[in-house]
Amino acid sequence: MEQKKVAVIMGSDSDLPVVEKAIKQLRELGIPVETHVMSAHRTPEAASSFARSARSNGFGAIIAAAGKAAHLAGVLAAHTTLPVIGLPIKSSTLDGLDALLSTVQMPGGIPVATVAIDGAQNAALLAAQILAVQNADLALRLDQMREEMTKAVLEKDKKLQSSL
Amino acid sequence: MEQKKVAVIMGSDSDLPVVEKAIKQLRELGIPVETHVMSAHRTPEAASSFARSARSNGFGAIIAAAGKAAHLAGVLAAHTTLPVIGLPIKSSTLDGLDALLSTVQMPGGIPVATVAIDGAQNAALLAAQILAVQNADLALRLDQMREEMTKAVLEKDKKLQSSL
Amino acid sequence: MEQKKVAVIMGSDSDLPVVEKAIKQLRELGIPVETHVMSAHRTPEAASSFARSARSNGFGAIIAAAGKAAHLAGVLAAHTTLPVIGLPIKSSTLDGLDALLSTVQMPGGIPVATVAIDGAQNAALLAAQILAVQNADLALRLDQMREEMTKAVLEKDKKLQSSL
Amino acid sequence: MEQKKVAVIMGSDSDLPVVEKAIKQLRELGIPVETHVMSAHRTPEAASSFARSARSNGFGAIIAAAGKAAHLAGVLAAHTTLPVIGLPIKSSTLDGLDALLSTVQMPGGIPVATVAIDGAQNAALLAAQILAVQNADLALRLDQMREEMTKAVLEKDKKLQSSL
Amino acid sequence: MEQKKVAVIMGSDSDLPVVEKAIKQLRELGIPVETHVMSAHRTPEAASSFARSARSNGFGAIIAAAGKAAHLAGVLAAHTTLPVIGLPIKSSTLDGLDALLSTVQMPGGIPVATVAIDGAQNAALLAAQILAVQNADLALRLDQMREEMTKAVLEKDKKLQSSL
Amino acid sequence: MEQKKVAVIMGSDSDLPVVEKAIKQLRELGIPVETHVMSAHRTPEAASSFARSARSNGFGAIIAAAGKAAHLAGVLAAHTTLPVIGLPIKSSTLDGLDALLSTVQMPGGIPVATVAIDGAQNAALLAAQILAVQNADLALRLDQMREEMTKAVLEKDKKLQSSL
Amino acid sequence: MEQKKVAVIMGSDSDLPVVEKAIKQLRELGIPVETHVMSAHRTPEAASSFARSARSNGFGAIIAAAGKAAHLAGVLAAHTTLPVIGLPIKSSTLDGLDALLSTVQMPGGIPVATVAIDGAQNAALLAAQILAVQNADLALRLDQMREEMTKAVLEKDKKLQSSL
Amino acid sequence: MEQKKVAVIMGSDSDLPVVEKAIKQLRELGIPVETHVMSAHRTPEAASSFARSARSNGFGAIIAAAGKAAHLAGVLAAHTTLPVIGLPIKSSTLDGLDALLSTVQMPGGIPVATVAIDGAQNAALLAAQILAVQNADLALRLDQMREEMTKAVLEKDKKLQSSL
Repeated sequence: MEQKKVAVIMGSDSDLPVVEKAIKQLRELGIPVETHVMSAHRTPEAASSFARSARSNGFGAIIAAAGKAAHLAGVLAAHTTLPVIGLPIKSSTLDGLDALLSTVQMPGGIPVATVAIDGAQNAALLAAQILAVQNADLALRLDQMREEMTKAVLEKDKKLQSSL
Repeated sequence: MEQKKVAVIMGSDSDLPVVEKAIKQLRELGIPVETHVMSAHRTPEAASSFARSARSNGFGAIIAAAGKAAHLAGVLAAHTTLPVIGLPIKSSTLDGLDALLSTVQMPGGIPVATVAIDGAQNAALLAAQILAVQNADLALRLDQMREEMTKAVLEKDKKLQSSL
Repeated sequence: MEQKKVAVIMGSDSDLPVVEKAIKQLRELGIPVETHVMSAHRTPEAASSFARSARSNGFGAIIAAAGKAAHLAGVLAAHTTLPVIGLPIKSSTLDGLDALLSTVQMPGGIPVATVAIDGAQNAALLAAQILAVQNADLALRLDQMREEMTKAVLEKDKKLQSSL
Repeated sequence: MEQKKVAVIMGSDSDLPVVEKAIKQLRELGIPVETHVMSAHRTPEAASSFARSARSNGFGAIIAAAGKAAHLAGVLAAHTTLPVIGLPIKSSTLDGLDALLSTVQMPGGIPVATVAIDGAQNAALLAAQILAVQNADLALRLDQMREEMTKAVLEKDKKLQSSL
Repeated sequence: MEQKKVAVIMGSDSDLPVVEKAIKQLRELGIPVETHVMSAHRTPEAASSFARSARSNGFGAIIAAAGKAAHLAGVLAAHTTLPVIGLPIKSSTLDGLDALLSTVQMPGGIPVATVAIDGAQNAALLAAQILAVQNADLALRLDQMREEMTKAVLEKDKKLQSSL
Repeated sequence: MEQKKVAVIMGSDSDLPVVEKAIKQLRELGIPVETHVMSAHRTPEAASSFARSARSNGFGAIIAAAGKAAHLAGVLAAHTTLPVIGLPIKSSTLDGLDALLSTVQMPGGIPVATVAIDGAQNAALLAAQILAVQNADLALRLDQMREEMTKAVLEKDKKLQSSL
Repeated sequence: MEQKKVAVIMGSDSDLPVVEKAIKQLRELGIPVETHVMSAHRTPEAASSFARSARSNGFGAIIAAAGKAAHLAGVLAAHTTLPVIGLPIKSSTLDGLDALLSTVQMPGGIPVATVAIDGAQNAALLAAQILAVQNADLALRLDQMREEMTKAVLEKDKKLQSSL
Repeated sequence: MEQKKVAVIMGSDSDLPVVEKAIKQLRELGIPVETHVMSAHRTPEAASSFARSARSNGFGAIIAAAGKAAHLAGVLAAHTTLPVIGLPIKSSTLDGLDALLSTVQMPGGIPVATVAIDGAQNAALLAAQILAVQNADLALRLDQMREEMTKAVLEKDKKLQSSL
């Protein structure tokens, strides 16, 4: 079984500072990533065409990052039955609530797997978890990462004891 | 100059009880209407294809009604430079706030002319106002309708005086 | 058919930094613009008088920008059947939600075509789209602008490929 | 010093079931009331004309009840320096939040004294309190009413003791 | 009839930067002001005692400024039938929404006349309008101030014409 | 060590249908309860006097239930250093958000231990947990109640297996 | 490759009327389902133990449905690196916003794939999409289902034409 | 009766700048404090194990501080019948509303005593009030602290008189 790729699509290149945490996390896990700027509104053909061929092009999940009336994840999800992960981006007003509701409140039939506002690392981890369902190696790497996270918190707790 | 038509598109036939007020208002104003159920997510090709050919098919404005993560107006607007009027529909949770934000908070470049949640009559009137910019007859009918509205309120005020 | 003008009315001159993006966009499209500071509350006579004579003065659409309890668009709309575009402005509290709701939630009979909070460019584009309904030249310019937007995003996508 | 009147203006006759509690309360306090249906949007001239002449017509305060994008109180306040009391009315969406923000978030220079959503009794009491500033009799009646309220609560408390 | 005073009470001296605009505005209108730091929670006795004797001490209105769970206006209103004006103050979280709802949503029987979040100038003007109900001189000053506001906006509009 | 009592104070007798779940829960745990209707605004003296003497009268915790601009818990907390548990009550508008924010967002110095909107049972359990800190018997009863809750859920899970 | 199972966990059996749509959808797709009532708060050991062994027990995804402060999805996700799908349930207050934010706003490291409030069908479809990443048969069934959805909407559109 | 300890648990060491005000306040009151970084999601075993043994380890109350989907307080509360005080922490989006709702809206059976967003001092005072129920010395200290707070406000009021 070959390793599936993850697509990271952002609605605007201004989303890159948030989105690059997802790219970095995927690469650290050894998952091949393809990144695009594509807009549900400015390049709808490119977006729908990408989504339609994503499965046959070897992708296993698509991360879609967008702000404001964030239609990107929903529009991609309308053209594929691959899991689409919605990453709502905070913009200059409403603190990301508009992007969150536009991404998560999808009508029946077309799900979007939504993560926290600006939650780029979690978008990447969710993609990895999806690929790991049938990939024991990746599942092991995710489990190890969890253990390291746990150790890091325990370490911080220990450090706190001596600092206070 | 021929009379432009108005398209009334709803994301789901369950929106019809709200949307039919728009259809009725347009017909009362003598404006030709074409109504469709089309979904940004379930029939994206039908929706984008409709929008792309709307101007050449004689439409002057498109009303798009949808609830929840209401992408319909934005997706139609992405495929035409005709005015697209977004009508957010209240659904079973969040009182229409999700539909409102998903419709109105469009990113730069692709405007959606948003009216109130469940504001079907106003969606129709806005479409009529748009057509009336170059149509003196329709403008006159709108002005008359306003005067009747004014009279009706004054009438109610008079009636209130005698009832209290 | 002569070229209609667009009025850009702001409730306070402090709104100018946001509003001037609308003025700039309209000028780039070759649309004649007239700009005013007028307040629903501080100069109600000037505002209603402007709205009442706007159609006969050659205007085809009015953009009304205001913050907080943003009554300006509604008050102008009460005195004209021209399309009034509401541009809610974010102020120091509530992130623009007050201006959005005050602008968009208009009661039946008096529509306001509302765009995103601080969405000045879209207010201008919507005005242009309204004028373009009966103006093939302007419609062409809008279509070309769309194509340039599309190209710009595709360009950014290409650039991203080489930068990551 | 003659007794000032209170005006109770509602934006729509559908607001009457809420608003009549204000009328009743004012009458119980012996304050002369004049009630009108007037709309900021449908009868703007009637509304502004009423407000401009309210002081010289013997009014001491104006209560303005409206729902949705509730501009009525603000529009009346723009035409008088009498105290205008805003009574936001809950409508079918957003639970009255739109009416509240549209009423209370007035820009500097034009205050609206806002009470709770659907808080008709308090709108009346506030009007009475304003008139009572220079009316010792009315102030006494308000104080007595308070004492009766206090007694009623103490009575309910006593009753509760025996019922539980 | 002697000139009534206005009390300006703030829940914390950290509210002074906002509140002093109210004090300044009242002084400009020639209205005697008395200012206090009093807290519904930290000095409840001082607050209730002040409110109980406010009318007999020559006050005509009380402005109460507080942030977060802003109980100050309501607590003062519970001890007087003078008009109490609630001025919600924005604090470090929730953008003032907590203070607004805590101030305006008063239960039946005890009204608070609420102005916009951080709307200190309007709190002062509302107090002045209340005093002006039976004070023709003050009413005249308020009308003149309005005219100056109107002129200032018209002036800004003229200036805008030459600058754009 | 004698058994402390819990006071259950409600701002209005209309809150009783929600509040009686707290009374019932406390009685089931064998905790003596005293219940009152007392209002921060209508009977402020009764409320503050109750709070001031609550500790010496044998109370260990006070539950304060109120809706809308719910000041009751805060006002009681201002007059005692006993733990005050705030129970926000949902009323006819805003779904309890006003009561929640008015109760929980207390300024520094005067805490209110807030539970969920309409969370009467949890208010009672929190009071019981507070009394159980120095009462091993009550702690045991709470632990047993937890175990029963756990068993009840496991039972429902088992039942679900056979029903689906 | 054996067929993975999907677990559907609900925090309370009162969630069943919403959740059973997810169970039904999974069964229609031929996906083995195991359903449990388990609570993050009432049966935390059962919940964490289930999550820890879910991968080795043959599960490919977990759906977690809960209302109010919905911790269930997050708590399950803390004990497994399988994809956890959060299904926020609307309860009697706040219209599901509390459940949505409690489910989606997960901190970095522990993602929850959140769907719409009460979006049970989409939770099921998302689980199916996750399993279909490495299951061509299931992917085909999902694609067919999409086509049927599309056809159903087109059918409704046709029907609408004749009914209006 | 020995002095109970208070545990201060934070979900991340980034919460320390807010949380240390709670630690400082507890120390000033002479209450023994134990502080930990523990996460509901990253170290769930450490957290539940701490909570389960907290009573027998001499704790009388647990303060749990967390941001975003703040599950920490609820998860601790699920493993102990000691009072758990939830301290919602504001993070980079939504202004702390997510943390507040995730903390306070607990389902029946497992209460969390929630204080204001970032209300660290009040979390500490609430813990102290809980311990003071059976500790007359501590109650006295809290009463004295209140009196000092009252004096400080009266002092500020006096100072304000001379400064204005």
